[in-house]
Amino acid sequence: MSFSADDRRFMMQALQLAQRGMNTTTPNPRVGCVIVKDGQMISEGWHEKTGGPHAEAVALANLTTKATGATVYVTLEPCSHVGRTPPCADALIAAGVTRVVAAIEDPNPQVAGQGLARLAAAGIATECGLLSDEAHELNIGFVSRMTRGRPWLRLKIAASLDGKTALKNGVSQWITSAESRRDAHHWRARSCALLTGIGTVKDDNPRLTVREINTSRQPLKVVVDSQLQTPPDAAVLANGGVLIACATDHAARRAAHDVLAAAGAEIVVLPAAHGKVDLAALLIELGQRGINEVLVEAGARLNGALLRENCVDELLLYQAPLLLGDAARGMINEGRQNELTALAGARRLRVVERRIISADFFIRARFL
Amino acid sequence: MSFSADDRRFMMQALQLAQRGMNTTTPNPRVGCVIVKDGQMISEGWHEKTGGPHAEAVALANLTTKATGATVYVTLEPCSHVGRTPPCADALIAAGVTRVVAAIEDPNPQVAGQGLARLAAAGIATECGLLSDEAHELNIGFVSRMTRGRPWLRLKIAASLDGKTALKNGVSQWITSAESRRDAHHWRARSCALLTGIGTVKDDNPRLTVREINTSRQPLKVVVDSQLQTPPDAAVLANGGVLIACATDHAARRAAHDVLAAAGAEIVVLPAAHGKVDLAALLIELGQRGINEVLVEAGARLNGALLRENCVDELLLYQAPLLLGDAARGMINEGRQNELTALAGARRLRVVERRIISADFFIRARFL
Repeated sequence: MSFSADDRRFMMQALQLAQRGMNTTTPNPRVGCVIVKDGQMISEGWHEKTGGPHAEAVALANLTTKATGATVYVTLEPCSHVGRTPPCADALIAAGVTRVVAAIEDPNPQVAGQGLARLAAAGIATECGLLSDEAHELNIGFVSRMTRGRPWLRLKIAASLDGKTALKNGVSQWITSAESRRDAHHWRARSCALLTGIGTVKDDNPRLTVREINTSRQPLKVVVDSQLQTPPDAAVLANGGVLIACATDHAARRAAHDVLAAAGAEIVVLPAAHGKVDLAALLIELGQRGINEVLVEAGARLNGALLRENCVDELLLYQAPLLLGDAARGMINEGRQNELTALAGARRLRVVERRIISADFFIRARFL
Repeated sequence: MSFSADDRRFMMQALQLAQRGMNTTTPNPRVGCVIVKDGQMISEGWHEKTGGPHAEAVALANLTTKATGATVYVTLEPCSHVGRTPPCADALIAAGVTRVVAAIEDPNPQVAGQGLARLAAAGIATECGLLSDEAHELNIGFVSRMTRGRPWLRLKIAASLDGKTALKNGVSQWITSAESRRDAHHWRARSCALLTGIGTVKDDNPRLTVREINTSRQPLKVVVDSQLQTPPDAAVLANGGVLIACATDHAARRAAHDVLAAAGAEIVVLPAAHGKVDLAALLIELGQRGINEVLVEAGARLNGALLRENCVDELLLYQAPLLLGDAARGMINEGRQNELTALAGARRLRVVERRIISADFFIRARFL
C-alpha cells in the first residue's frame, strides 16, 4: 500500500480537525474527517462530544455538492454498528463515495476492521494505516481502554533540578513557573480524570479543576483515600464530580462515608492488602466508566505505589532551575521493602518530548 | 566604539585559535592572535603553555611579510610587563602595527589597561570590547582567579530524573551513558584541578584523571579528607599530582600523614569549625597555586558543603532518563541545620546550556 503526498496532506488535515475535540469527546475518541473530490476538499467534519454526530456524519451533512466518486479521509475506521447514531459506513455507502482512507482501525477488538469490511463489501476501495502513529497518539487513551481495559495514565510531577517536589514541611507553591502551571492545565483539560491522594488533599487542598484554559467539560476528580480521611470541606469536593476510592467499608468508617456521600462524593471500595486501595482495580473501574486518559497529580507515596503496581504509562516532568537539597521531599516513594540494590532494577524511560517553558524544562517520557 | 563585520570575523578567528590552548595553558589564560593587513590575515598565533611564547609573539614570529601598518586582533589585552617572556606590547610597537583590537582587558587589577595604554602612548590605535562575552567565557577561570583570588568552580553531577546519584548501597556505575561520561572528560581536561571528597574516594575509588580524550596535561587531583582517611592504596594517589586538604595536624593523625606523604601526596592543613576543612580557604589556596578552573566530582555531603560555603559557580548536570526512587542517594546534603523552610531560600540557577547527549540530557547552569 502506498499513499500519495495529497493523501498525506488530507489525512493531516483530518487529524487537525480531530484535535478540536481534544477536551470534549470523552468517552469517545477524537475523530476528524475530510471529503475530497477531484483533488479538492469539498467537506470536513470532526466529532465534538458523545451523543453528537460522528466526524463522517458531520462532513456528509456539510456537503454542498454530491459526494459521488469522492475519497473520504478519516482518522479512525468508520463505525459499522448502530450506537447512539446510525453506522457511518452505511452513510458513506449511501453517499456514493468510491474510496475511504482510514488512519487506524477501530482499536476495539470486537469491531476492529468490520467498518472497513462493510465498505469494501459495498465495492468501495478501502485503505488503512496512513499517519497511523499520529492517529494512535491522538487517541492513546481510547486505544488503551479498548485494548487493555484501563486508561492511559500520566504522572505529572513539578520538581527542582535535584528532583524535589516540596520542602520537608510540605511547602511546594510554587516550584515551577506560572507558564509551566498553565501548560499543565492543558494536560488536565484533555484528561477524562484527574487523580490524587489523600496526602495531597491534606497538604495542598487542591481543587483539581481545569482553570487556566477554557473548557466546556471538567474531568472526573478521583481521590485515593484508603481510610476515608478526606475532610468534608476539602476543595476537591466542591461542585461534585468526585470519586473517592477507599479500602474499607468497615462500620467504623461508616460515618465518614456518609459525610462524604452527603458532600456529593461517590465512594468505591477497592481493598488491596495492608489496608491500601487496589490501584490496578481502580484503573479497571475507571476504564469501565469510559475514562480514557488519567492525569495523576499526587505526592511521592501515591506516585511510588502507582509505579510499583505498573499503573504508570507516561511521566510529565516540569523541572525548575533550582536546588532544594536532600532534606526536601522526593518524587517517588515506593516503600522501604522496594529499595533498589542494583541499577538493573532502575525504571528506564524513553523521552518522547522535551520543551523549554519559560525558565523551566518540560520532559515527557514513557516507561520502557 | 563600533566594530566592522571584518573586525568580528577576525576576532572570532582569534578566539578559535585561543581554544587550541584549552587544556594546556594553565595557569596562563587561553589567548589567540590574528594579524591582518589590507583586509587579509597575514599571520596567526595562540598560546600553548606557560613558559612558551604568548599568542602575539607566535603570530609575530610566524610573519612572512612585514607587519607595518597592520591590525592585530588579540583575545586578551597584550602584556606590558616582563614575565617569563618579554612584553608583547613592546614587540607589537617594534613591528610597526598601527591598530590593536583586544576582546577584553587583562583582568588582573594590577595590570588592567596598561598594555593598551603602552600601545596608545606609542601612537597605535587601540580598541577593546569586541566579542568580550566570548573572551570572558573562554577564560572564566583565569578571570575568577585574577578578580576574586579563587578559581571558577564547577559542580559536576550525574543523576537520574528524580535527582539520584547512586543507590542507597552506593552503587552508581553507571547511571548515565558512556557518551555522557566521555563528555565529562572534556570538562576534566580543561580544568586545572579535579576535586573530590573522602566519601567518594572510599565508595568509588576514582582515579580522577583524564582518560577518554587525549591530553598532554593531567589536572591536579584534590581530595577533601578532613581526618586523613585516604587509603594509601587509593587509586587517586597513583602517579602523584595529589593534594589532600585536611583539618588536623594533631599528633594522632601523624602516622596517616606520613603514610600519605610517602605515597606522594602533598598535604595542606586548613581547619574550619567542627573538624571540617575550610573550603573557602582551600579555594584561596588553589588560587594561589595558579588553579583557574576546578571541577568537583563528589558526593552529596561535599556538594552540600561547597554550596553552603558559596564556593560553587556552575552546575554541570548529566541527567539520565531513569528513576531510582526516594531511597537512593541525593545530590545535595547541606546538613540538618540547613534544611529549607521556605521556597525563597531555594538556590536558583540560570541555565546557560542544554544539550542532548545520547539518551541523556546535559544542563549547565549558574547560580544566581
